[in-house]
Amino acid sequence: MTYSLPNTRDEALALDSADPLAGARASFRLPDGVTYLDGHSLGPATEGAVQAVQHTATDAWANGLIRSWNDAGWIDLPKTVGVKIARLIGAKTEEVIVCDSVSINLYKLAAAALPLSKARRIIVEADEFPTDQYMAQGLSDLAGVEFVRVASGQGEAELSSGGVLIKSVVNYRTAVVADMTSHEAAAEAGGGVIVWDLSHATGCVDLDLGAVGARLATGCTYKYLNGGPGAPAFVFVRNDIANQLSSPLSGWFGHVAPFAFDEDYKPTAGAARFAAGTPSVLSLSALDAALDAFDGVSVAALASKARALGDLCLWWAERLGLQPISPGIGEVRGGHVSLLHEQGYPIVQALIARGIIPDFRAPNAMRFGFSPLYVRFVDVWDAMAALEEILVSKEWDQPRFKVRSAVT
Amino acid sequence: MTYSLPNTRDEALALDSADPLAGARASFRLPDGVTYLDGHSLGPATEGAVQAVQHTATDAWANGLIRSWNDAGWIDLPKTVGVKIARLIGAKTEEVIVCDSVSINLYKLAAAALPLSKARRIIVEADEFPTDQYMAQGLSDLAGVEFVRVASGQGEAELSSGGVLIKSVVNYRTAVVADMTSHEAAAEAGGGVIVWDLSHATGCVDLDLGAVGARLATGCTYKYLNGGPGAPAFVFVRNDIANQLSSPLSGWFGHVAPFAFDEDYKPTAGAARFAAGTPSVLSLSALDAALDAFDGVSVAALASKARALGDLCLWWAERLGLQPISPGIGEVRGGHVSLLHEQGYPIVQALIARGIIPDFRAPNAMRFGFSPLYVRFVDVWDAMAALEEILVSKEWDQPRFKVRSAVT
Repeated sequence: MTYSLPNTRDEALALDSADPLAGARASFRLPDGVTYLDGHSLGPATEGAVQAVQHTATDAWANGLIRSWNDAGWIDLPKTVGVKIARLIGAKTEEVIVCDSVSINLYKLAAAALPLSKARRIIVEADEFPTDQYMAQGLSDLAGVEFVRVASGQGEAELSSGGVLIKSVVNYRTAVVADMTSHEAAAEAGGGVIVWDLSHATGCVDLDLGAVGARLATGCTYKYLNGGPGAPAFVFVRNDIANQLSSPLSGWFGHVAPFAFDEDYKPTAGAARFAAGTPSVLSLSALDAALDAFDGVSVAALASKARALGDLCLWWAERLGLQPISPGIGEVRGGHVSLLHEQGYPIVQALIARGIIPDFRAPNAMRFGFSPLYVRFVDVWDAMAALEEILVSKEWDQPRFKVRSAVT
Repeated sequence: MTYSLPNTRDEALALDSADPLAGARASFRLPDGVTYLDGHSLGPATEGAVQAVQHTATDAWANGLIRSWNDAGWIDLPKTVGVKIARLIGAKTEEVIVCDSVSINLYKLAAAALPLSKARRIIVEADEFPTDQYMAQGLSDLAGVEFVRVASGQGEAELSSGGVLIKSVVNYRTAVVADMTSHEAAAEAGGGVIVWDLSHATGCVDLDLGAVGARLATGCTYKYLNGGPGAPAFVFVRNDIANQLSSPLSGWFGHVAPFAFDEDYKPTAGAARFAAGTPSVLSLSALDAALDAFDGVSVAALASKARALGDLCLWWAERLGLQPISPGIGEVRGGHVSLLHEQGYPIVQALIARGIIPDFRAPNAMRFGFSPLYVRFVDVWDAMAALEEILVSKEWDQPRFKVRSAVT
């Protein structure tokens, strides 16, 4: 489905009425009086996820105790949840395992990629997400591998000299979407390898890792996948290379037989060798249930709606004279839109005080996230109308909106 | 308190009546008809932990959404939960951070310890817990450091040549307790460093990391600390060396200002620099509440009761002609007792069928765990009486008890 750009609030409401994804919103437990535009940071809870956590705690843990590793299928969760994610990224079912955090998984994959690369160096772009840069630095220090930071957008060209490039598909500030096909071609030609970070892309971009020839990726599950705060991340490894790769974080859950208690590490087959420690069952059970909200929804439909919602935000931004740093109306874009304002921080706080929740990234970016399963066109309309009021009235210029929080 | 060895079931009941720790059992949500002797593998749920998970899911996540990182204190959980653990291991409050798994933390600490060691090598003993061995192998491969496996009990002597020794305080099979003081002295003398694995020790052994001069440690929270399946582990780093150390897994949550989005990694002060990715909030909230069951309980009292329960098990084992591989009656020991039997697997299954839950470790060890907060002397008595019946009647010799599960 393609969505037209509404010119009035009534047209926004009409779009919502006709929206084939509108039904998914009922799965979510959204609080009254809140318009949630921060799903690119932390997705909201589905009713199923809340119930799954309660069930896991009371039934599987409290009553089942240790038996639940077998009887409740805990031991299989990293794979069974991986199967649900595989469909959303265009992977085969056995190519995905759920484990650890994006940070940890970037390290595993970048280290495992080094032997595949012509040159022992790790490349990141200057505006890459911070933890991606930090993990590359830590790995480079320990493994004695060159750390290369190139300018924004120059990672693809740098691959001509080989190396392992850590690259986000969707930039966390701008929502610019990388051309995965051309990057993979450059990697192939130059003897390099790409570790994709799908954190801001999964669930809002039409990903097809198989079609673009991606070899390695990881991604976050607590943003557009709504897995819950700090939910475990996932690892994707293309089947044909998985068994050549070694995870440096060779923990017992990546072993071919964890409960044989062998002395020597023997990795299991496929992506599952990138598991390490005991899986975080409570968090996994929330994620498992949260993914059911995607049942029957195509990633093409998700991407199309996310962009249409972003287009409406950009249409308003132009009216309000706000400078976007995200791709424009009709262009390919991730699920969020960033608008610049030197008073971005207090403006966002003023919006939050009205129950409209975007987020802020220093020094001056207001990020509005359009998670397509539950954000409505009328939500975007009303949020931008409120933003207009705040700008016109200078409502943001109150001391209470200028107090900085630990997490901004 | 010291506990005498009961000679009859009535004496066991009398010990329970007089037990100063008896009240703690009321905190737990133990299922009816179950005698749980597997707390060394997965601790049971406390009522508070179940409620905390529900509250975090419904109130902090579903209603609070992204705001809960500040408003519900999520951002501080790795430290605030660490404070509760610090008391149980004899650490200062700022020396403990909760993050990731034991496997991952062993890697971080062993890598960080390398520059402190006279020799670039990593040492493990042959009967060390498997994941400890595997992580040492993975680190040694990536960092180009020698991997040294010595015979059981030879780690201390091996430290005379320097190196980083990964060593469990309580052996997972035998429950033998390492002499931490003499190990640390050997490390000091030989220019080596020890990374302690406290997994089977925390909550059942009278740990005092400060007194023994320990520098680095990690441990599991889902065993005697009852944090829930796959609950995050903890890292201990002695204050005076923390700021010299670099975690190779240098993720954004170990950065001095994670939300400043700096390009370069600058570690925060103290043990907290060993955090990496986004904390697993749902799991942390369960652990946080579970630790309240330890309020007002000294680790000396925990250790004393755990040993007395184990003594009673060993007294029975002698009557039944079962061979223990754990330290004997009155000796220092961890919280479990391992008894050998070539039919150990079906015997354990027959016990489980009666609602008595120990566990089994291949090839022939039956492990009985005596978590001192909720196991009663009469539980041990009745479990061992049931074991006697199973052995005498050969009840274990039924095909249904010989079917192997994924997790044994």
